[in-house]
Amino acid sequence: MAYSEFELIERFFNRGLVRRADVVLGIGDDGAILTVPAGHELVVTIDTLVAGVHFPLTTAPRDVGYKALAVNLSDLAAMGATPAWFTLAIALPENDADWLAEFCEGMFSLAREHNVQLVGGDTTRGPLTITIQAHGFVPAGNALRRSGAQAGDAIYVTGTLGDAGVGLLSAEGRVDLSHSAVEFFTDRLNRPSPRVLIGPQLRGVASSCIDISDGLCADLGHILECSGVGACIELGKLPLSAALKNCRDHSLPRNLFGDSSPPWAARYDYVLAAGDDYELCFTLPLVHEQRLSQFANLPCSLTRIGQIELEKGLRVRDVSGNRHSVPMRGYQHF
Amino acid sequence: MAYSEFELIERFFNRGLVRRADVVLGIGDDGAILTVPAGHELVVTIDTLVAGVHFPLTTAPRDVGYKALAVNLSDLAAMGATPAWFTLAIALPENDADWLAEFCEGMFSLAREHNVQLVGGDTTRGPLTITIQAHGFVPAGNALRRSGAQAGDAIYVTGTLGDAGVGLLSAEGRVDLSHSAVEFFTDRLNRPSPRVLIGPQLRGVASSCIDISDGLCADLGHILECSGVGACIELGKLPLSAALKNCRDHSLPRNLFGDSSPPWAARYDYVLAAGDDYELCFTLPLVHEQRLSQFANLPCSLTRIGQIELEKGLRVRDVSGNRHSVPMRGYQHF
Repeated sequence: MAYSEFELIERFFNRGLVRRADVVLGIGDDGAILTVPAGHELVVTIDTLVAGVHFPLTTAPRDVGYKALAVNLSDLAAMGATPAWFTLAIALPENDADWLAEFCEGMFSLAREHNVQLVGGDTTRGPLTITIQAHGFVPAGNALRRSGAQAGDAIYVTGTLGDAGVGLLSAEGRVDLSHSAVEFFTDRLNRPSPRVLIGPQLRGVASSCIDISDGLCADLGHILECSGVGACIELGKLPLSAALKNCRDHSLPRNLFGDSSPPWAARYDYVLAAGDDYELCFTLPLVHEQRLSQFANLPCSLTRIGQIELEKGLRVRDVSGNRHSVPMRGYQHF
Repeated sequence: MAYSEFELIERFFNRGLVRRADVVLGIGDDGAILTVPAGHELVVTIDTLVAGVHFPLTTAPRDVGYKALAVNLSDLAAMGATPAWFTLAIALPENDADWLAEFCEGMFSLAREHNVQLVGGDTTRGPLTITIQAHGFVPAGNALRRSGAQAGDAIYVTGTLGDAGVGLLSAEGRVDLSHSAVEFFTDRLNRPSPRVLIGPQLRGVASSCIDISDGLCADLGHILECSGVGACIELGKLPLSAALKNCRDHSLPRNLFGDSSPPWAARYDYVLAAGDDYELCFTLPLVHEQRLSQFANLPCSLTRIGQIELEKGLRVRDVSGNRHSVPMRGYQHF
C-alpha cells in the first residue's frame, strides 16, 4: 500500500483525537498557528529515538509511538510545564500502513491521556527515526531548571529506579527472569510514565529538577554541575520496585562500575546508573518539604534519597554508613 | 575524536552567535523557556532532511546545514511569520567533528542573517538525518494560509523557478552543462533563499500563500484544493533564470509529463514540476496588486503568472493561447 504524504496525514495523523482551543490551525498547512496563554512562557523540548539505538528493533510499534511522546512529556514535566502540543518528524524505511497505525495508536493514547494535540509533522522515507518536539506552558518566571540546588536541600525522586535498565537487559537476553518479572520490567522500559501531574506542582517548591533519562548519577550530576554544588545519596533509601528487590544480586551483570564493581554497589548498580526510567529527580529547601504532602493526584511515591552538599562531586553512603565517591555518568550516545 | 553530548553542545551548538531577548533559557536544560510577544500567535513548522533522500550524499556539510534551516524558514515565510527560534535534532553515523563544524557553519550563517536563535536540540547516533523545527510570530489573526484564494485573484511567484530541479539533475550527472551553469544551478539547489523578507509583507495583502518545495503544480495545487478553486497559469509568464533560458530544450530529461511530454511543455517541464525552489507562490485580490510596489527590501522579482478560476483543476495556457490541463503533482516521498 502506498500513501501520498497527504493521505498519510488524513489517514493517520489528522484524526479527531485531541482538539485544543489554543490551536488556531493544526496539521495541513506550511506551519501550525498557536496561542500561548497570557502571562505564560513557552517551554520547548525535542527528543529523537533511533531504531536500534534508543529501542530494540523488536519493540512493538505501539510502544515506540508511546515512548517517543512520553520522553518529551517527561522533559516538559522536568521543567514544571503543562504540556499542550507536539510535532512529529518520522522517517520510515517503507510505507507500512500496519506499522504506522499501531505506532499512532500508542502515541495518541498517551496524547489523549494528557490532552496534548499533534499540530504538525513531516513524514519522510529513511531509516526508522522518530523526532518529537513537545510544547508546554509555565506561568512566566516559574519554570524549573537544573540550576538552583543549594547545600542543605533535600534530594527527591519520583517512583522507582532501575526497572527500565533491567528491562533493557531482558530485551537483550542478558538476564534470566521469571515471566511476570520480564513483563514488569519490559513495561517499565517501553511505557515509562511521564510525571506530567507532578512537574507543575513542583513549581515554586523545588529548587531544581531534571528527568532521569541517562541514569540517576548522570542526571543528578547535571543538577550538581549546573548548580555548582555536590551531593550525597543514601543507598538504603533508593526506591526499588518489588520486582527489582526480588532479583538476586548475582543475576544482573555489572553496569556503572564495570567488572570492578565494589561489593556495596551490588543491585544498586542499576538503580544508580541505568537510563530510561523517566522519573523526576528534584531538590527542595527543607522548609518546603511539608508542601509535598499537599500534592494532589500523585500517581507514584516521592522518596527522599539524599542531600545537596557544599563539597562538589557525587557520593553515596552505604548501609554501613561509609561514604564512596561515584562517577556522575550514565549512558553516552558517543 | 569522541565528544559527550555536553561537549558537543559546548563546542558546536552553544556558541555566542545569535542571542535574542525573548529567549529566557536556551540550550542546556530539559527544555528552552521562551516568550511570545503579546498580541502575537506562534507559528511552528518542522522539516526533516534525510541523507540520500533529500540531498545527495556528496553534498557539502555546510550546504546541508544551510539548507536544513532554509527550508524551515521558507515555511515560516509562507505563513507570513517572522522567524525567531529553531531546534535541531541530528542523527550522525559517526562522531565526525569536522563534518559537524562545517554543518554548523552553514546553519549558523543563515541563522545570523535572519536573527534566529538555536534554542534546543538532540544529538544522537544513527543514519544521517536532520530535523529542524522553526518558530516564528505573526500578529494574531494575520497568518497566511493555503486556503483563502478566490476566483479572480492573481497568482504570483517570487524569484525564478526550476533552477533547483536542474541542479539536482546536474548533481546526479544526468545533464551536461557548462561549468558556470553547473555552479549556478547547484547553488540554487543547495542554498535556496528563504523569502523571509517577503512573507511578512504579504500579511493583509495575499489571500493565500505556500512555499514551492515540491514543484509549482503540486504546491499551487495545495492552494487550489484548500481554497476550493482552480487556476490557469500563463506559460509565457513563468519566471526563468537566464541560465535556464540558456539550456537547450533537448538537454533536459522529461519530468512532469514523462515520455509523453507534449511539445508545448519543453523547458517548462522543470519550471512547473521540479521541487526544491523554495520560492513563494501566493494569490492576491486584484485590488491589492498595487500594494506590491510598496514592498521594501525586495531580494528578488515578484511575477504574476496566472489567475485563480472558479473551475477546479489546474490548467496552463501556452504561448499560442491554447489551454491544457496539467496534473497537480510533483515529487512524492512515497
